[in-house]
Amino acid sequence: MTVQLPAVRFAKGHGTENDFVLVPDASGEFDPSPSQVSALCDRRAGIGGDGLIRAVPVAAVDEVAGSFGPDVVWFMDYRNADGSIAEMCGNGLRVFVAYLEHLGWIQLADGGTVTVGTRAGAKRVRRDGDLLAADLGPWRVVGGGPAATTGSDARVSIFGGPSVLPGLSIDVGNPHVVVALPDTDRLAAADLRTQPMVDPSPPDGTNVEIVVPLPHREVGHLAMRVFERGVGETRSCGTGAVAAVLAARVWGGSGAPDRWLVDVPGGRLRVVVPSDSRLAGEHVELAGPATIVAEGTIKVTEGSSR
Amino acid sequence: MTVQLPAVRFAKGHGTENDFVLVPDASGEFDPSPSQVSALCDRRAGIGGDGLIRAVPVAAVDEVAGSFGPDVVWFMDYRNADGSIAEMCGNGLRVFVAYLEHLGWIQLADGGTVTVGTRAGAKRVRRDGDLLAADLGPWRVVGGGPAATTGSDARVSIFGGPSVLPGLSIDVGNPHVVVALPDTDRLAAADLRTQPMVDPSPPDGTNVEIVVPLPHREVGHLAMRVFERGVGETRSCGTGAVAAVLAARVWGGSGAPDRWLVDVPGGRLRVVVPSDSRLAGEHVELAGPATIVAEGTIKVTEGSSR
Repeated sequence: MTVQLPAVRFAKGHGTENDFVLVPDASGEFDPSPSQVSALCDRRAGIGGDGLIRAVPVAAVDEVAGSFGPDVVWFMDYRNADGSIAEMCGNGLRVFVAYLEHLGWIQLADGGTVTVGTRAGAKRVRRDGDLLAADLGPWRVVGGGPAATTGSDARVSIFGGPSVLPGLSIDVGNPHVVVALPDTDRLAAADLRTQPMVDPSPPDGTNVEIVVPLPHREVGHLAMRVFERGVGETRSCGTGAVAAVLAARVWGGSGAPDRWLVDVPGGRLRVVVPSDSRLAGEHVELAGPATIVAEGTIKVTEGSSR
Repeated sequence: MTVQLPAVRFAKGHGTENDFVLVPDASGEFDPSPSQVSALCDRRAGIGGDGLIRAVPVAAVDEVAGSFGPDVVWFMDYRNADGSIAEMCGNGLRVFVAYLEHLGWIQLADGGTVTVGTRAGAKRVRRDGDLLAADLGPWRVVGGGPAATTGSDARVSIFGGPSVLPGLSIDVGNPHVVVALPDTDRLAAADLRTQPMVDPSPPDGTNVEIVVPLPHREVGHLAMRVFERGVGETRSCGTGAVAAVLAARVWGGSGAPDRWLVDVPGGRLRVVVPSDSRLAGEHVELAGPATIVAEGTIKVTEGSSR
């Protein structure tokens, strides 16, 4: 049975094709149930997206009111497409800031910054020409010394690929295992319709990035595909791109660059690691395009119409 | 490179989760290029849909002006998600009429009808309570006598299933091959990520429906999944549901009912075959829900932003 609720304003936006349903909520009145979120994020019966982002003042949300400094006005209330609560989403954070600009709630000159409240703490986002650049730190190479020297601490099996590949675990607030392949043909041939097997596997699973180093001089360059835990292969993953670069810097040793380009199926991301934090750090910047493509009103439904 | 064009009005609608981007065009000014259509139908960088439907007066479209009787005011300009032209879409036709009602361009009382121009001719649609019912005839059982008596004229291989299954070819303006499975467990287990092999295959390929007969008395009942040619598995297919019922009536013989329910992953459709046209006919009615879920404005982009 479908219960029709009032129509709400929405927008659709994406960053390298990580896409989101965005809802403006200046007064803190919109608190969708998990089934309403999943209906809005349904790609066929709703608008569709990898997640839903509510743009709401920090002061209007009991859960976080008072948690941030006085300069943090806006809270990114991020929900996964299945309706569950998520702490952070790197591309979502960039699209959220593009949406605040689109609404006219903030204005960023080139180089200007805004600090946004998220469930993973306050995050700073900077406008850099056409790109939005978000600081996704802190991060760490999991396993410490041995992983950082051997370049691997996990064994990964990808369907249709070589039997077992070495992987390196990286924590960017969420867990990642990064695997290197020798060339782009093998990257294209990898079958990510099935979840890669990771051994040992973290208790709640892990995202898996497969990457190929591309020729470069001063700026590092990777091609990447990603399998997001609980979702499947996606067109992009911001924290995944950051994890891939952090792994490539371990593998590259002391000569590895600080600035990287990461080509994902949905576009190109830029990752910059401050040169004073090689193996564990407080800051890492993810930059890329973030676009609002449509806006309007949508009927919010409770439950399934199937 | 992305070229920004003016924003256009749009709506998103679906019928049993066959979903469409709808564009109102009362003056016949919107003639999107194939790349604009595919950008609008992109599920991540656009709004997303199985196709785009332009609602436009017959008189405003040179291609069809004068092709229909004076009672046919509106033309359903249907494009596939890849930007190519399509002749017809059964669920799209029902959603198109829901959109004309939503816009206030027509008003249908319960039982009221409207005749719509399509590239496959004029099609009549009737409001039946919450459902919209479209006449999708003419149709025919391909292969004539032998197929109609043996119940099969093709051999079908489905990945992960039994080696070869008998299929029956049905033409509903587009080609279908219908295959029966013995139970819903085997229906659920069929792997439709890979295109089923059909022998002999029509030169332009065929849609494939796999169906399981469910217990019934006077009203026939099928569970169905569909692989649409050039698309993959979809949540629903209107002409596919019609083809499935026409095949089931061949298999059921002279006692087969005229009224059927067809359960697809995206919901439930109803198919009614007039009882005076058993094996070849001019009319067959497809009914089901058709919903407009969102409307707004969207930036139209030319080319790819990747």
